[in-house]
Amino acid sequence: MKEKPWAGRFKQGVNKKFEQFSESISFDYRLARYEVQVGIAHIEMLSKKRIISKKDARKIVQGLKKIEQEIKAGRFQFKPELEDVHMNIEARLFELIGESAGKLHIARSRNDLVATDVRLWLKDELKIVQGRLKSIVQTLLEKAEKQIGIVMPGFTHTRFAQPVLLSHWLLAYAQMLIRDYQRFAQLLKSADLCPLGSGALAGSNYPLDRNLVAKKLGFSGITENSLDAVSDRDFLIEFASVSAILMMHLSRLSEELIGLSGEAYRFFELPESLCTGSSIMPNKKNPDSAELIRGKAGRVFGDLIALLVMMKGTPLAYNRDFQEDKPAVFDCADTVKNCLEIMELIVKGLKPNKREMEKACEQGYILATDLADYLVKKGMGFRQAHQVVGRLVRYCEENGKKFEELKLEEFRKMSKLFGREVYKLFSLRASVEAKDVPGGTATLQVKRQIKKIKLILKK
Amino acid sequence: MKEKPWAGRFKQGVNKKFEQFSESISFDYRLARYEVQVGIAHIEMLSKKRIISKKDARKIVQGLKKIEQEIKAGRFQFKPELEDVHMNIEARLFELIGESAGKLHIARSRNDLVATDVRLWLKDELKIVQGRLKSIVQTLLEKAEKQIGIVMPGFTHTRFAQPVLLSHWLLAYAQMLIRDYQRFAQLLKSADLCPLGSGALAGSNYPLDRNLVAKKLGFSGITENSLDAVSDRDFLIEFASVSAILMMHLSRLSEELIGLSGEAYRFFELPESLCTGSSIMPNKKNPDSAELIRGKAGRVFGDLIALLVMMKGTPLAYNRDFQEDKPAVFDCADTVKNCLEIMELIVKGLKPNKREMEKACEQGYILATDLADYLVKKGMGFRQAHQVVGRLVRYCEENGKKFEELKLEEFRKMSKLFGREVYKLFSLRASVEAKDVPGGTATLQVKRQIKKIKLILKK
Amino acid sequence: MKEKPWAGRFKQGVNKKFEQFSESISFDYRLARYEVQVGIAHIEMLSKKRIISKKDARKIVQGLKKIEQEIKAGRFQFKPELEDVHMNIEARLFELIGESAGKLHIARSRNDLVATDVRLWLKDELKIVQGRLKSIVQTLLEKAEKQIGIVMPGFTHTRFAQPVLLSHWLLAYAQMLIRDYQRFAQLLKSADLCPLGSGALAGSNYPLDRNLVAKKLGFSGITENSLDAVSDRDFLIEFASVSAILMMHLSRLSEELIGLSGEAYRFFELPESLCTGSSIMPNKKNPDSAELIRGKAGRVFGDLIALLVMMKGTPLAYNRDFQEDKPAVFDCADTVKNCLEIMELIVKGLKPNKREMEKACEQGYILATDLADYLVKKGMGFRQAHQVVGRLVRYCEENGKKFEELKLEEFRKMSKLFGREVYKLFSLRASVEAKDVPGGTATLQVKRQIKKIKLILKK
Amino acid sequence: MKEKPWAGRFKQGVNKKFEQFSESISFDYRLARYEVQVGIAHIEMLSKKRIISKKDARKIVQGLKKIEQEIKAGRFQFKPELEDVHMNIEARLFELIGESAGKLHIARSRNDLVATDVRLWLKDELKIVQGRLKSIVQTLLEKAEKQIGIVMPGFTHTRFAQPVLLSHWLLAYAQMLIRDYQRFAQLLKSADLCPLGSGALAGSNYPLDRNLVAKKLGFSGITENSLDAVSDRDFLIEFASVSAILMMHLSRLSEELIGLSGEAYRFFELPESLCTGSSIMPNKKNPDSAELIRGKAGRVFGDLIALLVMMKGTPLAYNRDFQEDKPAVFDCADTVKNCLEIMELIVKGLKPNKREMEKACEQGYILATDLADYLVKKGMGFRQAHQVVGRLVRYCEENGKKFEELKLEEFRKMSKLFGREVYKLFSLRASVEAKDVPGGTATLQVKRQIKKIKLILKK
Repeated sequence: MKEKPWAGRFKQGVNKKFEQFSESISFDYRLARYEVQVGIAHIEMLSKKRIISKKDARKIVQGLKKIEQEIKAGRFQFKPELEDVHMNIEARLFELIGESAGKLHIARSRNDLVATDVRLWLKDELKIVQGRLKSIVQTLLEKAEKQIGIVMPGFTHTRFAQPVLLSHWLLAYAQMLIRDYQRFAQLLKSADLCPLGSGALAGSNYPLDRNLVAKKLGFSGITENSLDAVSDRDFLIEFASVSAILMMHLSRLSEELIGLSGEAYRFFELPESLCTGSSIMPNKKNPDSAELIRGKAGRVFGDLIALLVMMKGTPLAYNRDFQEDKPAVFDCADTVKNCLEIMELIVKGLKPNKREMEKACEQGYILATDLADYLVKKGMGFRQAHQVVGRLVRYCEENGKKFEELKLEEFRKMSKLFGREVYKLFSLRASVEAKDVPGGTATLQVKRQIKKIKLILKK
Repeated sequence: MKEKPWAGRFKQGVNKKFEQFSESISFDYRLARYEVQVGIAHIEMLSKKRIISKKDARKIVQGLKKIEQEIKAGRFQFKPELEDVHMNIEARLFELIGESAGKLHIARSRNDLVATDVRLWLKDELKIVQGRLKSIVQTLLEKAEKQIGIVMPGFTHTRFAQPVLLSHWLLAYAQMLIRDYQRFAQLLKSADLCPLGSGALAGSNYPLDRNLVAKKLGFSGITENSLDAVSDRDFLIEFASVSAILMMHLSRLSEELIGLSGEAYRFFELPESLCTGSSIMPNKKNPDSAELIRGKAGRVFGDLIALLVMMKGTPLAYNRDFQEDKPAVFDCADTVKNCLEIMELIVKGLKPNKREMEKACEQGYILATDLADYLVKKGMGFRQAHQVVGRLVRYCEENGKKFEELKLEEFRKMSKLFGREVYKLFSLRASVEAKDVPGGTATLQVKRQIKKIKLILKK
Repeated sequence: MKEKPWAGRFKQGVNKKFEQFSESISFDYRLARYEVQVGIAHIEMLSKKRIISKKDARKIVQGLKKIEQEIKAGRFQFKPELEDVHMNIEARLFELIGESAGKLHIARSRNDLVATDVRLWLKDELKIVQGRLKSIVQTLLEKAEKQIGIVMPGFTHTRFAQPVLLSHWLLAYAQMLIRDYQRFAQLLKSADLCPLGSGALAGSNYPLDRNLVAKKLGFSGITENSLDAVSDRDFLIEFASVSAILMMHLSRLSEELIGLSGEAYRFFELPESLCTGSSIMPNKKNPDSAELIRGKAGRVFGDLIALLVMMKGTPLAYNRDFQEDKPAVFDCADTVKNCLEIMELIVKGLKPNKREMEKACEQGYILATDLADYLVKKGMGFRQAHQVVGRLVRYCEENGKKFEELKLEEFRKMSKLFGREVYKLFSLRASVEAKDVPGGTATLQVKRQIKKIKLILKK
Repeated sequence: MKEKPWAGRFKQGVNKKFEQFSESISFDYRLARYEVQVGIAHIEMLSKKRIISKKDARKIVQGLKKIEQEIKAGRFQFKPELEDVHMNIEARLFELIGESAGKLHIARSRNDLVATDVRLWLKDELKIVQGRLKSIVQTLLEKAEKQIGIVMPGFTHTRFAQPVLLSHWLLAYAQMLIRDYQRFAQLLKSADLCPLGSGALAGSNYPLDRNLVAKKLGFSGITENSLDAVSDRDFLIEFASVSAILMMHLSRLSEELIGLSGEAYRFFELPESLCTGSSIMPNKKNPDSAELIRGKAGRVFGDLIALLVMMKGTPLAYNRDFQEDKPAVFDCADTVKNCLEIMELIVKGLKPNKREMEKACEQGYILATDLADYLVKKGMGFRQAHQVVGRLVRYCEENGKKFEELKLEEFRKMSKLFGREVYKLFSLRASVEAKDVPGGTATLQVKRQIKKIKLILKK
């Protein structure tokens, strides 16, 4: 079978440049093992439904299993002139078992076939991604538990804002990644339908048992409309969009790790084994691992756009444009999996620098909000209290003083409500523990948060 | 309260150009009614927890209700110099009730406030979008039921492929929109958490009952980490990504409606009331409604990118960059709602042209696959059958003949398996009804599909 | 003229919801003054070519000038039911001068008209953007000149790398903005062609003098193919893509300004009048202006994608999808102009903190590369020198020492090539001045750079 | 040299997973030949400036030339554990010539090196792209010249609008591609600057002759600011944005070729050698080549977004994120080059079907605008003439008549201005020739257009 499968209708052969341009085997070879699985399930069903003979079925299944072994062993020869994964495997089957191979493609089309293959692929990828997400959340959790005593400045607008527990900061990222996990889980559910039997676009002329095939392949159901089924790429776009959000989260964590491990902050030390030096500057220890993850966010956003644009304005049902789905989603999956793996290594190796974090908290009048709330609790309206403390900050700045260095009279010049007990406020620990509401940074609340996440992970 | 709420700490006033640049009231005024609701729920909780007095609470709630009426009546004056919706409403409260207004902002921050407002807004929008999706699916369903007898050419690669029922084609879009519906429903669930009480970033110094506030506002739960809660925009990005997929679907339907209602196909007539003419060419009746929807797909893809890029690489927690979320999601919501409304009108008014559809089916040797399957059923391998029929098509083309015009000898020159009963195949209806597998285009299967969709809509 | 201009051919009126959906006057009103200019130039040409009478021409031009005044005075009433800017102005002309107004649209179409209007608009916007770019580069230049003595740590990978002049850092951004300037200038040239006379798609039945109209409107030439001319939006996409690169530059500058003015670095103080405080934390002084600019980068990337997607896969010539070009480019232009204006204010008000910059240079073994080059000059291969200094850095770190605190023996333990003169290297100034190659950070080279930029600005 | 070049400073080795994650040799091997060229030019300059000895220089250059041969012959072994193209080549140099290889990296950094390599690469790619653009425009031109007599319906809104010459339609795409050509040419100019000598970020401690190196490498100048030079990726983003516009053009041409060669129009026949069949439907001849090009538009838009996002918010100077530039631009360049090559094959093989085009022109009242202009020339206002002809179209539609089938009385019922000579209008050829304005579709104008394009191509 050197000829194209559709050569009968054509007078001319295929232009060689076009053959190269349109081949997909250089990337869809990744689907080979799913292609074989689908072939086996399909043939077994055809045989059961007596659409082909048991003998033919046995021969074909044996051939496919041989091919499966060749693929696993890396011995299978993919040939560009055979266009795609489907034709590569069919051609090999002809070589192995002869003319019976011609029955493999009864009651199916490359349109429903590739849709089935890629869904199986996605399901496997989703499980890997979910596993890595779980693992990194677990790591964040362990860090948060172990380091629960450390206080760091919390930021808004990249400015010191209020003190928080380092654990609380770690868990903020755990929360993001849990949401990602749940989105991937949801996608796994919604993508879990088998399109095989949709034919090229209209269904099949044979009395297929689609549910049987779906079951054999591990799908939880079948698709409902053949025109839609062969042209639906929603699950791939959703994979890219869910991945884009995840990469956005990782870009944020990367940004913080890069910044806060820098010479100015020194809040963290990154594991040396995940840094590189410079080819010219002997002093450098660069956070390349985090930088690469941050940079790869763009790559996944690009994959998402590629997919959306590819589909935009295309009519029903299958169009060849759709072949471009695979380079984008393969790239997306690889990027996401690799970034998660490396980010987990970073988090694992991350050493917090308690002293630097606490030293930083002495800057930026980080307890000002606690002072305002103090006044409120003494009866002042919040808006007024805010003004009073604002003036106090300005006064301190102009006089180069910290709050705790002010005399009581200086406080009382701003408001008569200030009393001696105000000095008790000037403790990072006290400030943190006062945030004792659900979701707040008080130790108890953070521990509660850890427990909840553990419950989610157990599911 | 002409002054900025944070003026105490500052020596200089705000630059006027910067004030204009940074104001958000020109768009976040849309959140005003949610802002008021949140204020009332918050104050009632503060009062219950004895953080403020009942008297103050009563005054503030009355003030807020007055403001609510002003907003509903369109009488509320939004002022750019008051920056945003929060400060506009607080300032008005000061006007109405005096100094007690200063207590409104106890135990909350604009950071958790805006996150709460925008979630309430999103929940309402999601319900509207879901309603419109249901409605358009319903319309497609009705059309599919009424027009179940009509056969049209199904396409792949924009080429006639196999005959399908018009109803099957309509339902393909219904399937897409149902997936969209389910994605919006899923988002509604996952976004349904109240961030209020997260404070600026660290939680609150007051003994808040966050669950009570959430319940009052109709949320099903509360967020779990304050740092995350004030900087989480996942639900907005997800809204944009789910919307992007929906708009992609609408762009495909638009493309088909534009093409298939054109002079070359005449499969459909678009309602004149949704077309426009030309300012110069008196002959034109243009499908502007569908074109605009197709064009607006780009707009929503753009909103999605805007949001992802805005978040990329930003540190915890809130950053002012995030203010840019609202123009993007407001634009996205408006576009989606309007496009759904107009698309429903188009579908409702769409008149299929049965004769043209059937005439078209005479072209393109649309029954060739049925011929190949006929040979297979007579015992030929599929690959060989495909070749035989391919040669037959070429023969017909070269001799300007249709299949049904061939003599039996001509068939038998290609394969001895052809018998007289082959002529029974040349019926569109027979071809359609032969696709009698789940998801196929046979009438029974299409009816089954309709039933299933109805069940989903009932939920 | 309450009727649609194309009502003759239609039996039904327009659906009201569709009318609202498809109107463009809510944004294309911005083109009104260009519409009038184009009308006047067109009519004067028609009159000169005797296509209409002088009398009619005079009447129409007078009417259009009246309308021009109404627009300038803000008295012109734009009506949504009149669809777009073209029909609004034509309708008003009918009110003002009666039936002669019917001749305004001779030999033109909304397709060529809007393409002409929007090119005129773009040319004006480009000039404003160029002006602002020049102005901000000028400001950077002045700062660079005044502050030429200040040394700061240069960064790679967000880590201290080598000392550079603050002026050199400022000029790096000047270089980016000059490239932006040149891109906008190039676009101004390539977009400067008049499409009027292309008609709806095919040209015109009248003996028009297209060059005369182009000249009257200030264009440097005319478009060459009518089909292309009415559907070409390249210049708008290019505007968005050039703007996207500019916004990327501004996002980088913003990022650095936000980071380097933070509590950990304190390299810069941002003007208080461009910062805001917090509604809850009285201590905050937030760099909102820079944050908003950074956030708006996404917005412009989104506009670019919207335009590309809008055009993707659309056939020749005009399609209604193209109406969506204007919201995107208007948003892009406003964003760019505002961000440039605010960024200039920031740069103008920026106060460098020399002491902090120099203190920072003491960290990070920032002179290590100079040490390596010292060894090279003494004859060592660079690769080896790099290794030696790398070990030296490690030795210093482990012993908590700076280079200059090492004894000569300690140096010589690493390499015998070290001599006493090595201590002369430990001067920031010396390190900076040693980078005396074109484009390097030595004072002379930086001054040379300033001169060159001034020459470019003079052009 | 098995060790990392920066190993001296590090205690730990590099994590293996991180090594795999961060390697770039799997894609930047493409830069190898530029890397060698740059090395040779650099060393020759160092020798001339007596920074290294002539002997060392000779040895290194000989080594590099040997490497160059190995690369050309495909014998060079790229090793992932050596990170990138720079270290691979340096390591091989060590193998070939021993310790002198350590001098290759004097006065340069990977930061300025890769920026130089990639600019050289881009320059070569731009020339190839320009060549292919010229070639395809040439092909369009030849077709336009040969087929100048054929009339086809011009479209707006995918509806028949007015008749145009097929040549005019072909030239519309030539115009787009010429603009693309000019944009690539402009980019070639602006990117043609050599960054070598910028060092890691600050310039170099050696008395380099940067202009000499630039000249040796064929650059027309040098970059002006070292911080900017090592972090500038504008030229790559611009490459992607210019490519995105080109791909948008190709997507439009693809869309038209797909549509107009379909069964409903049959305006064109696509070369069979660029079509494929179906694996299941023996009747199919699918326009896969054009579909793939259309689909790949999304891919290039995605590359553009990836680059913009990668740069967004990154501080000066080099960051490791930037390594992600190469996968995006390599993909962009390959896609653009391949699509141009295939599109030229399609255009070359395209057979217009004159009869079908002319038959189509009988539909859609395509001469209605000529009728309106006829009335205007008889003295009617255009707005009124439009209404009259609009009613005429409606009358014809309702009575199933064409214009030329109406009796004179029927015309005169609509307007007394109609005279017998109206029947002369009903000629496609007459309609086309009447569009005799520059840019119009009249034969003379189209010939003039061809001449102009030829002049541009000659430059």
